[in-house]
Amino acid sequence: MRYLLILLLPFSLCLRGQVQADYPPLFALTLAETQEQVDATMEQTFLVPTPVDMAGGYTHEVHKQNWKTLMDAGALFRLTGEEKYATFVRDGLLQYAEAYPSWPLHPTDRSYATGKIFWQSLNDANWLVYVSQAYDDIYDWLDPAVRERLNTELFRPMADFLSVGNPQFFNRIHNHSTWGNAAVGMIGLVMDDEELVQRALYGIPNEELPEDLRDDDSGRIMSETGRAGFLAQLDLSFSPDGYFTEGPYYLRYALSPFLLFGRALAEKRPELNVLTYRDGILGKAIDALLLEADPQGNFFPLNDSQKGMSLYAPEVVKSVDYGYFLYGRDPSLLSLAEVQGRVTLDDAGLAVATGLAAGKAKPFRPRSIAFTDGPDGTEGGVGILRAYGDGEEQTTLVMKYSAQGMGHGHFDKLSYSLYDRTGEVIQDYGAARWVNIDQKGGGRYLPENQTYAKQTVAHNTLVVDQVSHYNGDIRIAENHHPDLYAFAVADSNLQLVSAVAEQAYPGRRLHRAQWLLQDPVFEHPLVIDLFRATGDRPAVHDLPTWYMGQLMATDFDFVTNDTLRPLGTDHGYQHLFLEARGRPTEASASVEWFSDERFYTQTMITEPGDEILFVRPGAHDPNFNLRRDPGFVLRRGGVTNPTFVSVLESHGSYNPRDEVARNPFGRISDLRLLVNDDNYFALEFAYPNAGRWILIFSTKDADPEREHTLNINGQSHQWRGVHHLIKHDNESE
Amino acid sequence: MRYLLILLLPFSLCLRGQVQADYPPLFALTLAETQEQVDATMEQTFLVPTPVDMAGGYTHEVHKQNWKTLMDAGALFRLTGEEKYATFVRDGLLQYAEAYPSWPLHPTDRSYATGKIFWQSLNDANWLVYVSQAYDDIYDWLDPAVRERLNTELFRPMADFLSVGNPQFFNRIHNHSTWGNAAVGMIGLVMDDEELVQRALYGIPNEELPEDLRDDDSGRIMSETGRAGFLAQLDLSFSPDGYFTEGPYYLRYALSPFLLFGRALAEKRPELNVLTYRDGILGKAIDALLLEADPQGNFFPLNDSQKGMSLYAPEVVKSVDYGYFLYGRDPSLLSLAEVQGRVTLDDAGLAVATGLAAGKAKPFRPRSIAFTDGPDGTEGGVGILRAYGDGEEQTTLVMKYSAQGMGHGHFDKLSYSLYDRTGEVIQDYGAARWVNIDQKGGGRYLPENQTYAKQTVAHNTLVVDQVSHYNGDIRIAENHHPDLYAFAVADSNLQLVSAVAEQAYPGRRLHRAQWLLQDPVFEHPLVIDLFRATGDRPAVHDLPTWYMGQLMATDFDFVTNDTLRPLGTDHGYQHLFLEARGRPTEASASVEWFSDERFYTQTMITEPGDEILFVRPGAHDPNFNLRRDPGFVLRRGGVTNPTFVSVLESHGSYNPRDEVARNPFGRISDLRLLVNDDNYFALEFAYPNAGRWILIFSTKDADPEREHTLNINGQSHQWRGVHHLIKHDNESE
Repeated sequence: MRYLLILLLPFSLCLRGQVQADYPPLFALTLAETQEQVDATMEQTFLVPTPVDMAGGYTHEVHKQNWKTLMDAGALFRLTGEEKYATFVRDGLLQYAEAYPSWPLHPTDRSYATGKIFWQSLNDANWLVYVSQAYDDIYDWLDPAVRERLNTELFRPMADFLSVGNPQFFNRIHNHSTWGNAAVGMIGLVMDDEELVQRALYGIPNEELPEDLRDDDSGRIMSETGRAGFLAQLDLSFSPDGYFTEGPYYLRYALSPFLLFGRALAEKRPELNVLTYRDGILGKAIDALLLEADPQGNFFPLNDSQKGMSLYAPEVVKSVDYGYFLYGRDPSLLSLAEVQGRVTLDDAGLAVATGLAAGKAKPFRPRSIAFTDGPDGTEGGVGILRAYGDGEEQTTLVMKYSAQGMGHGHFDKLSYSLYDRTGEVIQDYGAARWVNIDQKGGGRYLPENQTYAKQTVAHNTLVVDQVSHYNGDIRIAENHHPDLYAFAVADSNLQLVSAVAEQAYPGRRLHRAQWLLQDPVFEHPLVIDLFRATGDRPAVHDLPTWYMGQLMATDFDFVTNDTLRPLGTDHGYQHLFLEARGRPTEASASVEWFSDERFYTQTMITEPGDEILFVRPGAHDPNFNLRRDPGFVLRRGGVTNPTFVSVLESHGSYNPRDEVARNPFGRISDLRLLVNDDNYFALEFAYPNAGRWILIFSTKDADPEREHTLNINGQSHQWRGVHHLIKHDNESE
Repeated sequence: MRYLLILLLPFSLCLRGQVQADYPPLFALTLAETQEQVDATMEQTFLVPTPVDMAGGYTHEVHKQNWKTLMDAGALFRLTGEEKYATFVRDGLLQYAEAYPSWPLHPTDRSYATGKIFWQSLNDANWLVYVSQAYDDIYDWLDPAVRERLNTELFRPMADFLSVGNPQFFNRIHNHSTWGNAAVGMIGLVMDDEELVQRALYGIPNEELPEDLRDDDSGRIMSETGRAGFLAQLDLSFSPDGYFTEGPYYLRYALSPFLLFGRALAEKRPELNVLTYRDGILGKAIDALLLEADPQGNFFPLNDSQKGMSLYAPEVVKSVDYGYFLYGRDPSLLSLAEVQGRVTLDDAGLAVATGLAAGKAKPFRPRSIAFTDGPDGTEGGVGILRAYGDGEEQTTLVMKYSAQGMGHGHFDKLSYSLYDRTGEVIQDYGAARWVNIDQKGGGRYLPENQTYAKQTVAHNTLVVDQVSHYNGDIRIAENHHPDLYAFAVADSNLQLVSAVAEQAYPGRRLHRAQWLLQDPVFEHPLVIDLFRATGDRPAVHDLPTWYMGQLMATDFDFVTNDTLRPLGTDHGYQHLFLEARGRPTEASASVEWFSDERFYTQTMITEPGDEILFVRPGAHDPNFNLRRDPGFVLRRGGVTNPTFVSVLESHGSYNPRDEVARNPFGRISDLRLLVNDDNYFALEFAYPNAGRWILIFSTKDADPEREHTLNINGQSHQWRGVHHLIKHDNESE
């Protein structure tokens, strides 16, 4: 579709009689689209209604639309010089200047920091960040008296309201505060109001804060640590390699004020060297954002994320364009910009459009990477394995061993999710929330976000005794984090991520290792999963697999229930209906499902007494807020030190148009543990008529240089490093 | 994607060093792809394994692949003259001639007519239909001795096996028999075996059939009526306007032998005039097939249909190409062929590719149509309403008031389904079956097809006292059918389909009327639904709505269950879990859901005592064969003559990339009945700030020329025809 758009561009521009001959096509297209939208809006009356509504409601949406229209009109004035746009911005701002001073706090009173224009100060800050740009675009053009009026009656009061008026909003290390800092700083730069700029950069000094300042949003109040403001956000919001502790959904949102204020500072306060600040942390944050998306471009729904937010969302345009323009002109970003179909209306967007027009784009091919978490990079992280198969098909495995992620964190230590060209294969539930949809709780987090989506059982990780990690208590969780044990991706055919969680359960050590194993024998990479728990007393261990699709078959018997009851009473279990229960009798059990024209087979090593529970959310869900996606739980009770092992195959194809099932059966056989002791773990499996694999893993020493020798069934194996793969081709071949 | 393919074509052909300069691009592309596939297959050993497997299994798939390869190789010999292809076909056939005579019946014994190559004779007939074409392509080239051997040792025995050897398969009026007739007739034409051709055309004479012939597949055995064979199929398989009583999924399948044998007869027995036979019934059947698909091209899943079968399936290529070539060269078919991306490798495909290359394609824009059912067109039918909105978006409503549809029919009289650009909005469940997927019951119909998918409650139509139409008994159902009451589509802004079912329940008359109403005020057409039941005693009336998507909100309270139990014990109710129950207290109730970036709101007139039950299939489903799609049921108990009325709005948009909810609320208000008596029905509703509509419907007299006068609340309305719409613009505007 984008090809067509580009091809049609000259024609559509001619229709407007404004061929932007000097601009490369994508810039000209964006400009023309923006002009069309703004022109249409300018034909309507510009409304500044007295704020009353929640997100999704009328006044909320009008003020949100206004910030966008004002910003776009400012850009049009800057790029075209047409005064009608400047006039429009000026008159709109004057309407706000007329109304704003008389507005009380927003009547909703549902936020820890209620705004004036919106229900929360955060949205007021959004407004000011965007409108500051419009104001900047017309500032020099404005009549000084008007400028003075806007400065003193609208913008300075608004900046004060968002900072000294709401320190619990402004002075934390939190994405909300970044918006506040940027808003105050950007308007300060426009007005050349040094006091605001300093406040934005360094926060409100502790001595100016009320002593009893409290925050009800679970985030750290940075007045306690003595630092606040934009530079502190740059130091403390990201890990040294740019990872954002709340995850990509929030990074996407948080990055906007960083980039916009950052660019403005680079231009107007070059002595701060903000672009190279902290070894170029802004560029690293952009990189981290773009690397946290699945093969379809959707961000991994870690923590409280609404699914479907994507590399191709409008909000990400500036990350791509600024990343390209300010940090190294990586030609693979151009291909993202091409799919985004628009650019920023500034130098960065022009550079991107120019690069595209020059044919410089290269495929975007994200790499395997282990991100650290925490400001010092010492609080665990997120490991991403990517394997590329035929036709560049990408299989992506994400293991999460990060810190809690503040108020939006989930209790999901060592959880994982898996993606391929069909999207989610093993899903992370994401958040229970419909952002900006009024009829679902005003667009805010739903109660089931706390009671289900955050809980451990909603994730693909181990639950002990039906209690969530850290007892589901953020106050405990914030003090701990798992740690990376090993990350090995040099061999693209055998990639490993492994991490350890010591404190998720008192007295219990959790150690997980996951591999993507590629071989010409397999259609797609295998996922090999090892999950060991080591405890001080027996417990019930539940390992859920939240697969996407339709159950096809199992190799064990199960019994379905015709009366469905919740699986438990708390920690998310109260939301799970138990649909069926099976008791595998062999040494392994396999579950096969089908999704989006492909088959998947997970084969698990089982022990006597193991149960497989087929579950589905939906219980205690009085407003149908939970998705009814299926899962199965491998349950092992009465053991102290269980080891869970599985291999997941993706195979075959089927589509309803030709109705031919190709390779509909998984092929793994003879999956078994060869070694499982304090020092080593060794796994064997076969692929009939193709080969037999042994995978050895050093569970105590991850040193990549360490030499190991291990005797297995009379055969001695020697290798260097944390793992070792042996393949025996089939003798009959 | 298809644009790219076409653009790349010269290059990809050059790669093969075979620019087919004489052929138009799509024909050349198909030829090149076919050649590539056949050449690759010819490098392998041609295997003719002894048959043992069910559909999806090894021998099944090999023999299925063989028929395709042989057919394609024959075509390549015809088009390229390269003898290697003829040799390949000959040698392959000789392998079959060697093995076939010694094969016993297929060992599976699961069909009413077990085959030899496959588990059912039907697939043997498929094989012979396709391989006959290959044989025809090389027949003249063959050495006479080889020809004689193949004729006598392979083909004549196979033809006899499929006809006189299996009359219960060959001699019915049924799509299975059509395959049998075509197979026998096509090989007869190739071999010039007049006995086979006559047998194919006219069936096996009754006097040659065993007296105790029985059929266990629920279809009519035509030896009872004295007619069989291909011409009888042409007379009796379709209604006069081409509708196929089993629905489009089966028509798509059944049409292949009709078209292939039909074309062969047209060429080799022109005196039969088969193309114009029965007023050109073959062309009408093609037309009927192409008109029974939703806006995404998927066939309406009426009766036993697997969902996802599509206009763009490989099997439909010949319907499009033969429809174009043999019946009027409709340029809109070219645009279907373009998306199909291939053509038949014969004169028809060449004509299509030539037309496409000449730029003759026009958009395919299917029309509203009421198909009759039954060989004489007197057994009800299917009514399709289509409304085109902005950007050619198509809303499609399908009401089914057809005959039972033989063994694949569902008990769903007056049921309806709705489609828009997002696909299914109000779904027909389709079949409980995974065609050709071995792990799901060998790819055959699953038990839940009978116990759920066929039952009335699985459809969007009225269930009385929790019993399916015709008591769920095909023997009763086959004797009855509803009748069309009115079909009015001349005014594209107010389209009506209405039908009556007198015998679905003894002593009860069901009358449904549905409209698509377009107005600039509405974003998309409204669906107005009127369903009246008139009985001789009180009963419980259940009207389900099987919506696709996520429940957003209701305007009445409901209580969810945390223990789920089946809603009933039989007629499909045993499969439905009751998730929640609401009791609307106002005169209307609305349910809103969200699906695929769009909102939907259904507003229903309710009466005191009405209940709304939220249900989901899944109970008594021991193998997870049922989809967990939600539905709600409007239940009205203890009444004799209920009238159900609802209006369905499609509105707004939301996508997770920009997170802006546009028009997320339905707007219909003041929905109420003004008149509801023996002769008339009148409905009123308003759209705030936009207008008020009154829709009057003559329930006893559908004569389009009749003059009516009706007094409503002191105002006299006069009109001509079955319905009348009055719009009052909002006074305040």
